[in-house]
Amino acid sequence: MPVRVTIWNEYRHELTDEYVKKIYPDGIHEALRNQLSSETDFVIRTATLDQPEHGLTDEVIENTDVLLWWGHMAHGQVKDEIVKKVADRVRRGMGIILLHSAHASKLMQVLTGCSGSLSWREQNEKQIMWNMKPTHPITEGIGEYILIEHEETYGEPFGIPNPDELIFISWFSGGNVFRSGWVKNIENGKLFYFQPGHETFPSYKNPQVIRVLKNAIRYIKPSGYTEHVDSIWQKEPVNR
Amino acid sequence: MPVRVTIWNEYRHELTDEYVKKIYPDGIHEALRNQLSSETDFVIRTATLDQPEHGLTDEVIENTDVLLWWGHMAHGQVKDEIVKKVADRVRRGMGIILLHSAHASKLMQVLTGCSGSLSWREQNEKQIMWNMKPTHPITEGIGEYILIEHEETYGEPFGIPNPDELIFISWFSGGNVFRSGWVKNIENGKLFYFQPGHETFPSYKNPQVIRVLKNAIRYIKPSGYTEHVDSIWQKEPVNR
Amino acid sequence: MPVRVTIWNEYRHELTDEYVKKIYPDGIHEALRNQLSSETDFVIRTATLDQPEHGLTDEVIENTDVLLWWGHMAHGQVKDEIVKKVADRVRRGMGIILLHSAHASKLMQVLTGCSGSLSWREQNEKQIMWNMKPTHPITEGIGEYILIEHEETYGEPFGIPNPDELIFISWFSGGNVFRSGWVKNIENGKLFYFQPGHETFPSYKNPQVIRVLKNAIRYIKPSGYTEHVDSIWQKEPVNR
Amino acid sequence: MPVRVTIWNEYRHELTDEYVKKIYPDGIHEALRNQLSSETDFVIRTATLDQPEHGLTDEVIENTDVLLWWGHMAHGQVKDEIVKKVADRVRRGMGIILLHSAHASKLMQVLTGCSGSLSWREQNEKQIMWNMKPTHPITEGIGEYILIEHEETYGEPFGIPNPDELIFISWFSGGNVFRSGWVKNIENGKLFYFQPGHETFPSYKNPQVIRVLKNAIRYIKPSGYTEHVDSIWQKEPVNR
Repeated sequence: MPVRVTIWNEYRHELTDEYVKKIYPDGIHEALRNQLSSETDFVIRTATLDQPEHGLTDEVIENTDVLLWWGHMAHGQVKDEIVKKVADRVRRGMGIILLHSAHASKLMQVLTGCSGSLSWREQNEKQIMWNMKPTHPITEGIGEYILIEHEETYGEPFGIPNPDELIFISWFSGGNVFRSGWVKNIENGKLFYFQPGHETFPSYKNPQVIRVLKNAIRYIKPSGYTEHVDSIWQKEPVNR
Repeated sequence: MPVRVTIWNEYRHELTDEYVKKIYPDGIHEALRNQLSSETDFVIRTATLDQPEHGLTDEVIENTDVLLWWGHMAHGQVKDEIVKKVADRVRRGMGIILLHSAHASKLMQVLTGCSGSLSWREQNEKQIMWNMKPTHPITEGIGEYILIEHEETYGEPFGIPNPDELIFISWFSGGNVFRSGWVKNIENGKLFYFQPGHETFPSYKNPQVIRVLKNAIRYIKPSGYTEHVDSIWQKEPVNR
Repeated sequence: MPVRVTIWNEYRHELTDEYVKKIYPDGIHEALRNQLSSETDFVIRTATLDQPEHGLTDEVIENTDVLLWWGHMAHGQVKDEIVKKVADRVRRGMGIILLHSAHASKLMQVLTGCSGSLSWREQNEKQIMWNMKPTHPITEGIGEYILIEHEETYGEPFGIPNPDELIFISWFSGGNVFRSGWVKNIENGKLFYFQPGHETFPSYKNPQVIRVLKNAIRYIKPSGYTEHVDSIWQKEPVNR
Repeated sequence: MPVRVTIWNEYRHELTDEYVKKIYPDGIHEALRNQLSSETDFVIRTATLDQPEHGLTDEVIENTDVLLWWGHMAHGQVKDEIVKKVADRVRRGMGIILLHSAHASKLMQVLTGCSGSLSWREQNEKQIMWNMKPTHPITEGIGEYILIEHEETYGEPFGIPNPDELIFISWFSGGNVFRSGWVKNIENGKLFYFQPGHETFPSYKNPQVIRVLKNAIRYIKPSGYTEHVDSIWQKEPVNR
């Protein structure tokens, strides 16, 4: 059965910053779509902030298995009602991948209860992202670590709940460490946070980064077994 | 050092329902204050929904170490801005105890990312609340279990994240089980959910229930060591 | 790819106790093999305590994807060297299902670090096993709960580490609750503990119990992606 | 009430290696005792491998609240029966701190079920140990990080279960990261693993390292509320 993937992007830096435009001329969402489209079991669409309803109509949300989310400078412009709909859908089983600066998105806070705060620095530092779980489906084909020559530095402490599965911890040449990849169960849905992807670096052209995304999409897609049930009134006792 | 406790109560059932009024004539908040006031290290105040700012001014929120929260029929009337302030304070270190039907409060959802959904039934069933952690500070003096002759039945599945510490699981005579007491770390603060306390039963007069609350207040109060730090920009690398 | 399943049984009660013999005339291992053999992707063998090396030669251990383990009266007779080999294999990726009274087996203690202690009672009580994770692969097709008319009662507190995934909590008519199904990651392998199966009751003929076992075997089988690596000496720094 | 601390040391390197002898002339255990003796609420004794029963008689084990354990070259010489007694005591409530190369000790494996495997390198690298939990009792007074100019490099993946509390993650100049400080609940006892302390570096003279040990001893000492109960037979139902 195909996996219905929706890639959401704020799509602002790429329109206004010449440097970013050169790296991602059609936007981060199109770069990701291009990379992921090699997978014949993925059915991909994109959505962006400036579309009506941010491109996330009820029809789109209900028919998405896994949502990728990239946002940064315009977190505050994402409408609360859309955030609420997406979060509800995650609780009912949709997978969500929060990318890079989505650590500070409304969705991070709504889904984890935490602030997503961290320390950061833009110094073109080297990143080594260590594979903590060499037999986990998300790290299939990754090997010991992913080397990224230049990325924005993110550092601990990272304001998140205890992850259910801690997959990657990163080293930055400036002396920081960071939990770069982790899974949290949100009722019937799974959230995967994945740190690479600052707009000024071509991290979404790194084959290993893309491999992780492909693996993660398959890992966090809904099981499809059952639908979530809201609070219910049971009139009769189960034990009679 | 004293623990500054604020007891928040929706305070509606007790004003409108004669049956409830008989059990808690001055409201659940005053009943709890009365029970907790035996502890000389507690400095207690109360706050209710219909007070200005729900009784939770910035001054109150900032000077509270542990907040108890009872709400039920009026969850929707709690203002989002107050919820946000309380949640931010928890992330910075305040302890919070969500009582009984607060499973469906805005605060539960904002702090856990989950719905708090469950199944329920009002049949005056017997409840046996098992102590899962006999050496935990929250269960000091409790023994093997707490027997409550009549309570509202709450049942799994309970829409919550994996607790960091699972303290009580309950048995109900009608055949249900329920995670009745658990702790979740919310960044620098601790959340304790505690299930007993339906408004039509005198559970807050049960000495063991009160003992758990006293223990929990001391367990989840802020460590006082450090204040939370928001996301920060580190201009200089740590490794030079 | 087929899943290579080995069913290990102590096989003592069935030989010496007429009552048990009637329920499981060929032993619990053969009853389980019979039930699981409907799955065409399972390749099943059995092994018992009184075989040479308990039936668990290196060849068997290395060529097992998922090991089921039933033991009770003869835990102490299982050789430490076999326990060690099985545990090492789990750490390298094999799945293991500890059944019922295996809560007190050497393997439980060696793999969890905990005692597996609990309270118990044989009173033919009714058991209701609640499905805590309605969208989890292990509960596919199970519905809200599994009703078992008569089982041995197991009660909390259960001396185990925090499960990574808590799948079932049970209710017993005598007033107890018990974490009846849970998953713990043991390095590269997964352990599933599953409580039903006292030798005097036909629980392994219950279709829902069997369904859980089938689901669990597929869930905890090795990912096959990578082999575990022992502690290694890295002569050269990764960052050069 | 005083905390009864026992410091156990293998005490081999210091007797045979001139370089180590210069750093810890009376052994690591005496260096630690010296550092910890500033705390007037600690009652400290030491024990070493070559003493009868490794210095860990039943009397010592039963009267220890927190045991510190340093071992390296002689893990295999620690008698299984002593390991068993210590592990049982932890399950009943004693705290244990496994130091540095104790990652590969029998106690690590017996208490966690995992191998404790890791990668390592001796290159006198710089270590920055990040404080992940700035309001946790174990990090009181520590600040953002601990800088250790030279330590042995330990690297992920670290073969351990999911920690219940992850306190420190370290950065090493050679490019590795490592979970350097974490707590795991072992039934009624707490295990704290703490990585600094290779025998060829004076890490146990670092005031911040010592501060963490002092904090941890107080954090993991037994609650004293209840004694652990072994598996028990409950003849009568709780629900009558």
